[in-house]
Formats: sequence, structure tokens, C-alpha cells
Amino acid sequence: MMLQMSPRHVESASNPLVKELAALRDRRARERSGAYLVEGRREAGRALDARVDAAQVLVAPALLTSGSSVEAWRARAEAAGAAFCTASASAFKRMSVRENPDGVLIVVRTRRTTPAQVRLPSGALVLVLAGLEKPGNVGALLRSADAFGVDAVFMCPDLDRPGSATGAAPGVDLENPNLVRAAMGSSFTLPIGVGTREEVLTAVRAAGLRLVATSPTATTTVWDCDLTAGAAVLLGREHEGLSDWWLEHADARVQVPMRGTAADSLNVSVTGALLLFEASRQRRGSAR
Amino acid sequence: MMLQMSPRHVESASNPLVKELAALRDRRARERSGAYLVEGRREAGRALDARVDAAQVLVAPALLTSGSSVEAWRARAEAAGAAFCTASASAFKRMSVRENPDGVLIVVRTRRTTPAQVRLPSGALVLVLAGLEKPGNVGALLRSADAFGVDAVFMCPDLDRPGSATGAAPGVDLENPNLVRAAMGSSFTLPIGVGTREEVLTAVRAAGLRLVATSPTATTTVWDCDLTAGAAVLLGREHEGLSDWWLEHADARVQVPMRGTAADSLNVSVTGALLLFEASRQRRGSAR
Repeated sequence: MMLQMSPRHVESASNPLVKELAALRDRRARERSGAYLVEGRREAGRALDARVDAAQVLVAPALLTSGSSVEAWRARAEAAGAAFCTASASAFKRMSVRENPDGVLIVVRTRRTTPAQVRLPSGALVLVLAGLEKPGNVGALLRSADAFGVDAVFMCPDLDRPGSATGAAPGVDLENPNLVRAAMGSSFTLPIGVGTREEVLTAVRAAGLRLVATSPTATTTVWDCDLTAGAAVLLGREHEGLSDWWLEHADARVQVPMRGTAADSLNVSVTGALLLFEASRQRRGSAR
Repeated sequence: MMLQMSPRHVESASNPLVKELAALRDRRARERSGAYLVEGRREAGRALDARVDAAQVLVAPALLTSGSSVEAWRARAEAAGAAFCTASASAFKRMSVRENPDGVLIVVRTRRTTPAQVRLPSGALVLVLAGLEKPGNVGALLRSADAFGVDAVFMCPDLDRPGSATGAAPGVDLENPNLVRAAMGSSFTLPIGVGTREEVLTAVRAAGLRLVATSPTATTTVWDCDLTAGAAVLLGREHEGLSDWWLEHADARVQVPMRGTAADSLNVSVTGALLLFEASRQRRGSAR
């Protein structure tokens, strides 16, 4: 990254810093540079609250909304040990991915945790996302995981099914701007372990968790599955579901009973929320 | 509408029919013409299966995906009493709102049902959407309502809060293309009553349903609320929630208990799915 040459102000939309940061929209550029953008007053504030490794805070004074000031953001940058830079509205818009940018953007250095590095309490509730591709779905799932007090999320590609209609590389793109936005701050606060599916399975086994797979063809309903002890709730890809590899390693397979006529199965982000909600119901009143 | 002059084939993207149909992206044009578009092989197929009032079926042979044929769509148009028309790829793309159109589009005449016109069985489960604005959220809620066998959905604007950041007119835009897409066919099959909030409340009372409002400040959890008898589950706007008017008319107020730290409350489409899922859990084994 060129961030060491951080200017105090960028006026031109063709400034090298602006170009470099605008390029972080692209996943390969994020992986190459080891950094990503968090845009928006609320999201950037939550990222700083969660002590992400912030390299830089950028503010466009002309775009700030009421209650947001250049001086307050300068102070936040200083507290976080991050460089501070103001930008013209046109330079800012070049870096923004939003229709209505609110003039706040931070550059964060990517930190990844492996599944083995995540510490889990006994009786943990964990969410496992195997091969999910849509950043909006993954972000929504992280938001629900946070809402229901999940102890950690494990993420991995599902290598039986590398092909993607969009041609995207397999793997987990946790720094995607749409994911960050949909997660509403939870991608900064939740313990998230990213690895291969074997690493995820090893961590699940090491923590003594019951691996509960969701499958529309399962004969047990989620209401008949005990989620009060340590459990890892496993979700597969949006259309294809879980691979045989995962289904064979699961300790239980459950389904969400449905009566529908026209609609396909529920959206995966809804299915995940329902399972965590049911775990919450079963666990309420417990000491945890 | 000019559909009476339906051609057999449109080649040019500036053909008057193409322009007229492309304009249906705009809500006011949909309301003026009393028609809307349903795009996509799967969605159009489900709409025809559900016997919507189809005026026209348009197919772009150059864009059809495998398993989809001009002759099969011509036959479906005939069976539905709809005009049939082929289009060039460029003409089709002008009407399409998708990134990767699959060459199938139907024009449907809008049919609206009022809350009073919806027939409900005894002990019905109804979903009430008051003032929801995001088409993707409403579509996802319809999909979940269908999956959990809801008997009807009532929709109304919430007139205490007419202002919208986007300047959109208040009211219910059930024919929005993003709503239709997210609903995965359920907007064609579910009984949906659209009216004022007073009309919705009257229909809820007439059916003897308990009106259950969701509110983050409620002291009763959804798990402690009896949903086995006739119930109308009420959801408010994405950020503001329900107006005082609705909260005062509700028979019960419930919350989904959360432990979250960073994330705001759950997305409204998730909250709705959780309530319907809980109603399903409480009602399972019943004769319904």
C-alpha cells in the first residue's frame, strides 16, 4: 500500500491515493494490498469502536451530514493511530460505492483469524457458512448471529463446488463492501474464523460441538433438535445447499418445516436466522 | 395502454411498444396504465401458473436459456389468452431491469384486492405490513409468508409517517419489479389485501384476529405470546417501526429477545420470518 505517503487533503479525483483506494472495490486489489474500505459514518464509527486496524480516516467536509464534524473525525483518527485526510466531494465520490455518500470513509488493514485461533466457551453456539457467495446474505447472517449472541462464525469455501456463474474465485470475501454494509458493524465485533472446510471441521470437533446441518430433505425438524448443548449450525450455498462432504460429516440434519406453494425454500439468510432464533428459545433461562 | 396494437415482432429498441413497456419501470406509469411487467422465465411461469391477468407474453429468442423455447411460450400465451410477441435482444434489453435477462417477459394487468374482499378461515394467521417501503424487504416477507402457510397478507401505508427520504409517494407498490423478483412467485399466489390502515384494522377485527405488534421495547417475548388462535402479526417501517396509532390499536406487543452488541435490531424481513416461524411452531400438530 502507498498509504505511507498519505496527504492531508486530496482535491482531484485523479489523485494517486484516490485511485488506489477506489481500486479496493475489486477483490483482488483488496487481497493484494491487505486493506479494505469501510464507508459511512455509522459503519466507520462502529469499526473504530471495535478497534479495527485503521490506517486512514478520510472525510469530505462538503458531504458530511448533520451531527458529523471534520474535527470529531480528526480526533477519532488520532485516537486510533490512523492518518487523517480531507477530500473534495468529487474525489470522495470516486472512492465511494454508495448512491448518497455521507462523506466518511476509513481504510482498514485486513486481519484474518483462522478457525483454530477462535476461542470458544463451553456450550458455544457457532454459525458455519460453507461456500456462501452473496455478500448481502453473508452480511445479513452476521447481523443475525450478533443479534442472537452467537459465540463465533466460521467461514470456508465449499470445494466440492468451485464453479461459480459469475466466475468469481472461490473463497471468502469478508471485506466486500456490500457484506460490510449488510453486517451493520457485526463483521468487526464477531469472532470470525476463516479457513478451509477441513480447518473448520477440526475446530468444530475440537470444541466438542454438535454439527447441525440444514437440509430441505431432512426428516427431523429444527424444533425436535436439541440445540441447548454446544452446537455448530451449518448453512450451505444459496441454491445448491450443502455438499455431500458436509452432509456426511454432520451429526444431525434438520429442516425448517414449510407449507408453501409457490415460493422456493426460504432465503438462506432467513433460514440461518430461524435456526439461531430457535437455539435462543431453547437456551433461554440458561445461565449463559 | 396501447397493447391492443400488439405487434408479432419488435426489432427496434425504439419501437413504441418497447418504449411503453420500458416506462413501466416507473411507478406512476404502472399506476396510470394499470399494468406491470413480470420478468424472467421462472417468475413469468409462476405468474401464468397462478392465473394472473396476462395481457402479453414477450420473448427474445436470442436470449432464451436452455430448456426455454419460443414455441412453448407461444403456447403458454395462447392458453392464458394473452398476445404473443417476439423481440430482438436489443429491444428486450431496453425493457429488462436485469443484468442478465433470460429473454422472457410478461405484461400483467394489475388486480387489487381490498382487505374486506379477502376471505379468511377461522383461526387464520395473517401478516400485516404497515408502511414498509423497501421492495426487497416486502418481497422477502411475502416469500416467508408463503413458506409458513400464512392465510393472507394485508398491506397499507402508515399515514402518521408519510415523509420518505426518497420522496416516493406513500402507498403500496405491489407491482415493483424488485418486489416481484424477491417474492419468488408468492405475490401472485398469496391473498393480498391492500387498503388504508383503517380498512386493514376493520378486516382484522371482522375476522376476530388478535393484532400482535412487534416492538423492540415490548416486555413480552414472542415465545410467551399465544399465536395458536387467529392472529394478525403486524410489522412497521424499516427504521421507524410502528406508529403510535398502530401500537395503540394492537392487542399485544411482543419483542424478539436479542443479545447483540454491534448490530441494530434485526432486518424487518428477518423479524417477520421469525414471528411466522414461531407461529408455525406453536400451531404444529393442530388440525389446520
